[in-house]
Amino acid sequence: MTIRVTVWNEARQDRSDDAVRAVYPDGINAAIAAGLREEDGLLVRTATLDEPDQGLSAAVLAETDVLVWWGHVAHNEVTDEVVDRVHARVLDGMGLVVLHSAHFSRIFRRLMGTTCALKWREAGERERIWVVDPGHPIAEGLPESFVLDHEEMYGEHFDVPAPDRLVLVSWFQGGEVFRSGCCYQRGRGRIFYFRPGHETHPTYHQPLVRRVIANAARWAGMPSGSAPSYSNPPPLEPLG
Amino acid sequence: MTIRVTVWNEARQDRSDDAVRAVYPDGINAAIAAGLREEDGLLVRTATLDEPDQGLSAAVLAETDVLVWWGHVAHNEVTDEVVDRVHARVLDGMGLVVLHSAHFSRIFRRLMGTTCALKWREAGERERIWVVDPGHPIAEGLPESFVLDHEEMYGEHFDVPAPDRLVLVSWFQGGEVFRSGCCYQRGRGRIFYFRPGHETHPTYHQPLVRRVIANAARWAGMPSGSAPSYSNPPPLEPLG
Amino acid sequence: MTIRVTVWNEARQDRSDDAVRAVYPDGINAAIAAGLREEDGLLVRTATLDEPDQGLSAAVLAETDVLVWWGHVAHNEVTDEVVDRVHARVLDGMGLVVLHSAHFSRIFRRLMGTTCALKWREAGERERIWVVDPGHPIAEGLPESFVLDHEEMYGEHFDVPAPDRLVLVSWFQGGEVFRSGCCYQRGRGRIFYFRPGHETHPTYHQPLVRRVIANAARWAGMPSGSAPSYSNPPPLEPLG
Amino acid sequence: MTIRVTVWNEARQDRSDDAVRAVYPDGINAAIAAGLREEDGLLVRTATLDEPDQGLSAAVLAETDVLVWWGHVAHNEVTDEVVDRVHARVLDGMGLVVLHSAHFSRIFRRLMGTTCALKWREAGERERIWVVDPGHPIAEGLPESFVLDHEEMYGEHFDVPAPDRLVLVSWFQGGEVFRSGCCYQRGRGRIFYFRPGHETHPTYHQPLVRRVIANAARWAGMPSGSAPSYSNPPPLEPLG
Repeated sequence: MTIRVTVWNEARQDRSDDAVRAVYPDGINAAIAAGLREEDGLLVRTATLDEPDQGLSAAVLAETDVLVWWGHVAHNEVTDEVVDRVHARVLDGMGLVVLHSAHFSRIFRRLMGTTCALKWREAGERERIWVVDPGHPIAEGLPESFVLDHEEMYGEHFDVPAPDRLVLVSWFQGGEVFRSGCCYQRGRGRIFYFRPGHETHPTYHQPLVRRVIANAARWAGMPSGSAPSYSNPPPLEPLG
Repeated sequence: MTIRVTVWNEARQDRSDDAVRAVYPDGINAAIAAGLREEDGLLVRTATLDEPDQGLSAAVLAETDVLVWWGHVAHNEVTDEVVDRVHARVLDGMGLVVLHSAHFSRIFRRLMGTTCALKWREAGERERIWVVDPGHPIAEGLPESFVLDHEEMYGEHFDVPAPDRLVLVSWFQGGEVFRSGCCYQRGRGRIFYFRPGHETHPTYHQPLVRRVIANAARWAGMPSGSAPSYSNPPPLEPLG
Repeated sequence: MTIRVTVWNEARQDRSDDAVRAVYPDGINAAIAAGLREEDGLLVRTATLDEPDQGLSAAVLAETDVLVWWGHVAHNEVTDEVVDRVHARVLDGMGLVVLHSAHFSRIFRRLMGTTCALKWREAGERERIWVVDPGHPIAEGLPESFVLDHEEMYGEHFDVPAPDRLVLVSWFQGGEVFRSGCCYQRGRGRIFYFRPGHETHPTYHQPLVRRVIANAARWAGMPSGSAPSYSNPPPLEPLG
Repeated sequence: MTIRVTVWNEARQDRSDDAVRAVYPDGINAAIAAGLREEDGLLVRTATLDEPDQGLSAAVLAETDVLVWWGHVAHNEVTDEVVDRVHARVLDGMGLVVLHSAHFSRIFRRLMGTTCALKWREAGERERIWVVDPGHPIAEGLPESFVLDHEEMYGEHFDVPAPDRLVLVSWFQGGEVFRSGCCYQRGRGRIFYFRPGHETHPTYHQPLVRRVIANAARWAGMPSGSAPSYSNPPPLEPLG
């Protein structure tokens, strides 16, 4: 079964900021999509904020099994209409993979119901990512831990609902920890938050980061069960 | 330790609708508050939609450890300002007990991130409420199950995140089941959704319903741990 | 990917008891296996208590991705050796689907750590099974609810750890409810408890019951992530 | 309400090993109990393996609301009878606080159903313990993180069921992380696993470690809801 993945990006800093262009000359989105295209069974397209309908028309979403989302400086430019549309599609079964600074995206905050705040530090320090739930499909093919030599630190407390499954925990050189791989079910949709990916580090070129994102796309694109209805039905049994 | 409870109600149908007035001559809010006032250790006040600041000024919330919420026909009259204020207080540690038709309140939907939709039927049928988590403090003093002779039916699927703790499940005469007592942690705040309480049935006069609401107020008003910060801190360890 | 399923049964009452033989002339195991053999992608074998190694040698388990378990009157005949072997394989990633009266099997109690006790009544009453988590793969292809005309009742409280995912809840004609479809992760293995299947009712011939068991076999047989180690490693970072 | 705490210890290394005696001249148990005795509302007694009934007679357990357990080299000396008795009391509502190397105690493994294995390193390295669930009562009075200058390392993967609530996560100087404060509900009993406490470090003299253990004793000793029954009842509704 082919899973249709749309990789969405605000695509601002990777046009305007030389430090970002040095790492992602074709844009962050291209690097994420390239990683996914290395995989069998995934059909990958990209979309960005400055396209018509902010890249996320009803037609695009209808053809999307999993949406991958990266944003940072333009969260508030995403319109109510787009947030509402994506939100409805997730509850109806579309998967959503939320990357790094998209913890503050409108769609993630809408789905979580919390502030999604955290600690951060841009010091290019070492991050070690540990698998704490080795039985989860998102851990498939990972070693017990892996290293990102230089990343932005995100530290606890991370103000999200406790994940349904906590798959990854990060250790940072500066002394912090972070719940870096968090699974959620909302309605019929699966959501995965994955921490790494600061725009000035080559994180999305890293093979194990790509493995996590591809595993997450497969997991979030899994068939989503049965269709509920919300209605005012007659009794199934006699009320006597 | 005294727990300060504010019982909030839209207080519309119990003024305008004779069938509701027959059951709750002093209003639904008065009945809920009367149940809570039977308890030691709870300091109870009431508030309603038509009061200044919709009854929920910053000052009222600052003095509230647990907010009990009933609404039905006027959910959309609650302003953004009030929803934002209550939301922030819950994440900061105030408890919230959400009753019956308030499953569709703006504050509950904001906190859940889902539609909170369900099935319903107004047929005055029998409901049996079963304890499925007898170790939870909200089950304190309850029998294994108890009966409401006449209630509105709410049926699955209930579109909420899976509760952190599922305490009560309802059986309905007409053939449905419902997750009737659902606990959530959001930020530092505790949330309890409790199903019963259709406005034309004397549910909030029922002693075991009052027991659940009082237990929930105590549980949601429990000390809420430590204070997180969300900041940009220097490293705790040398970055070398 | 083919999933290798071993369907295990104590196979006692279906040899000795005429009422059971009338419903399952070839044994309960044959009916369960027949349902699984209707599916693509599942390679199904059977095993029973009276075979050498109680049907579950190390070799059989090594070739099993998912073990389906039905037992009732002979739980205590299963040896420590077999329980230990199955337990180790589950923690190492083999799926386990536990049916009906196997709630009291030694392997399920070992994995749960609780008594697994419940209420029961053999009155051949009507059961309605509701999907409460429509986004779960085990709900794939199910209607919102389905009926078993005659079943043994199991009622709450069911003394198991709260399931990681609660997929199905049963309504019984006699007034009880039950958490009928419960998912657990233990080590790298997935466990699903499914309630129906009293030996004197034709439950395992029912198409939707077969659908649930087949979905559960697929779900529990999913790739199980990465391999942990438990060791005494040198530091990854300088302790300086 | 007074909570009756029994602090149990195998009490072997703190008699035989000079390095342990140097840190805990009166035994590890005395240090843990001394911390608890600083608190209001806790009535503290101690018990050890070499006492009659291994210190845990039915009479002692009947008078215990919370049992605190430390063991290391003598896990296998604890008899089946004592494990069965403690297990039954936990399921019936007694709290259990499991410390450090007691992750391998028979009672903890029985309750978890998994191996409870982990990585370890005795290098006296620095540990930072972070609060990841600030709304939990066990976090009451804690700063966002605190330091133990010298501790044994425990690293992931920790083979336990995913905790119902994950309150604390440890960072280690050598590069590992660990889920250090894990809450479980089993039957009507509450269980808290707390990582620190290697026998050659003065961990149980540390004020914040004592705070966590006292908070855990209070939390695990909370009233445990209602009493379930496991029976063969007549129908509540007509089966007609």
